[in-house]
Amino acid sequence: MTTVSHEDVRAAAGRIGGLALRTPVLEISPGLFLKLELLQHSGSFKVRGAFNRILSAGELPDGGVIAASGGNHGLAVAYAARELGVRAEIFVPEVTSPVKVAGLKELGAHITQTGAIYSEAAEAAAKRAAETGALTVHAYDQPEVIAGQGTTGLEIVEQTGGVDTVVVAVGGGGFAAGITLGTVGSPGPVAGVSGAGPRIVAVEPERIPTLRAALEAGRPVPVEVSGVGADALGASTIGGLAFEILSGPRVESALVTDEAIMAARRTLWQRHRIAAEPAGAAAYAAVLSGVCTPSPGERVAVVVCGSNTDPATLTT
Amino acid sequence: MTTVSHEDVRAAAGRIGGLALRTPVLEISPGLFLKLELLQHSGSFKVRGAFNRILSAGELPDGGVIAASGGNHGLAVAYAARELGVRAEIFVPEVTSPVKVAGLKELGAHITQTGAIYSEAAEAAAKRAAETGALTVHAYDQPEVIAGQGTTGLEIVEQTGGVDTVVVAVGGGGFAAGITLGTVGSPGPVAGVSGAGPRIVAVEPERIPTLRAALEAGRPVPVEVSGVGADALGASTIGGLAFEILSGPRVESALVTDEAIMAARRTLWQRHRIAAEPAGAAAYAAVLSGVCTPSPGERVAVVVCGSNTDPATLTT
Repeated sequence: MTTVSHEDVRAAAGRIGGLALRTPVLEISPGLFLKLELLQHSGSFKVRGAFNRILSAGELPDGGVIAASGGNHGLAVAYAARELGVRAEIFVPEVTSPVKVAGLKELGAHITQTGAIYSEAAEAAAKRAAETGALTVHAYDQPEVIAGQGTTGLEIVEQTGGVDTVVVAVGGGGFAAGITLGTVGSPGPVAGVSGAGPRIVAVEPERIPTLRAALEAGRPVPVEVSGVGADALGASTIGGLAFEILSGPRVESALVTDEAIMAARRTLWQRHRIAAEPAGAAAYAAVLSGVCTPSPGERVAVVVCGSNTDPATLTT
Repeated sequence: MTTVSHEDVRAAAGRIGGLALRTPVLEISPGLFLKLELLQHSGSFKVRGAFNRILSAGELPDGGVIAASGGNHGLAVAYAARELGVRAEIFVPEVTSPVKVAGLKELGAHITQTGAIYSEAAEAAAKRAAETGALTVHAYDQPEVIAGQGTTGLEIVEQTGGVDTVVVAVGGGGFAAGITLGTVGSPGPVAGVSGAGPRIVAVEPERIPTLRAALEAGRPVPVEVSGVGADALGASTIGGLAFEILSGPRVESALVTDEAIMAARRTLWQRHRIAAEPAGAAAYAAVLSGVCTPSPGERVAVVVCGSNTDPATLTT
């Protein structure tokens, strides 16, 4: 039984309105829309879930909020906490680049750098949360986080007037799951499931196929993580809540190569002056490389979801 | 007597719809909108005027179209000509960087590199046009060009529901003049000229004050051109048509320093992941530096108008 619903997404929209940006949509050719979620505060969609999780908690513990992430999730939790005047502790592995640590510090977060790899930092964060009672904000596998990310789906429907298909990248799956819920019942006929909402094309790098592996196994299973999307789509296992939602009939799994991702990123910059990180270009890569080819007249929204990148690398 | 009108802008919108992009608007704080015209085809607003000028000409001469510019205008004319299947000749001075020449060639334009400075290339282009009968597309001082740029103003009104103020950069003045016409009669009260349309804050770099100098002299006069905006706002004299429009009661002149422009450019990137060229950040610089401070409740649209920049320099 799914523990997050379309109504939860609507409630999240009410909660985070005015805090997360309503990111714009750009129609680059007739019926092909880019949802520019990379222009979101903190450079990715992750603030939506972070705001919703924190605001859903009622009175916060003295320990504030805590998260483990040296990437977009960490930046988002730090940003949301600062905006809400809440203390944030972010645990990052020792390998995290000084630039990212500095970015987190700039947002006022308390940083603990510990553990050789991400999972060790996450364990340390969990231990710390148990001690302090801080509210944990998970990167994808919490109902409030999924509902928050799903507000992107509501906006896509409103801003486009409805599409047949939404193309979105999958890491831990929280974003794609949220958008699946957020677009329930919107206009846009889908073959076989008319009225249910648009088809969701869930795009993963070939080298991090967490959803594909789970769909084949019938349950979340760990995969090896590598390639250009690893810093932002590097969950090794799809989230349990996300899998419940993404194994439904509206969702199709698609895989893209690292080469296709980098080509899409270059094209986004050269043709549209959109500065995406590799993971942020993964969904567009599916369209550009022909993995997902819109039918004549099909209305498609492609989510460009992250921009935390060194701009000097946009033309490489 | 002004030779371009609001109706001309509306006619232009009908002509160029589906060719120029309807660029998105991002509300970065309540009532403060960024019009993301830097996401336009060819990386600046200039394609709007180029399309409108070419499409207004009826049957084109065998010589196609001709323009002088090594910058955004040249790229825009080359882009528009390619999309319309028209031959384009672009004259650029010898100092034009190989990267820009390559960009023009990629768009299929025929390039003539001649003259030490821009005005010499422009003279050569004029001579060539007289020989071939090619249609000249001026960078700012033609009615069709101004009307085309003005479609940005129509979109601002539609996308925001009306603003009190539009803040826009001025080089030759065609863009600001077009937006002034395009926003005529829109909602948004302006002190003293209610119903006329929003106040237009016309922003120039201190080191290229073509409008300010013309307002002080009562007529277009040449100024020295230097500073970070010179490559895109480097007209030495405001256009005559633009000056007629920009000397009206709705328009206020504002000057920004080069330092404010570069700070605004950094902020656009760091806070909003918007990759503007220096000139493209000039209007936002006026708001960010306090030269133009919105009153409480004032609704303001700031036009970010160009992105033809080396992304490696965004953080400098």
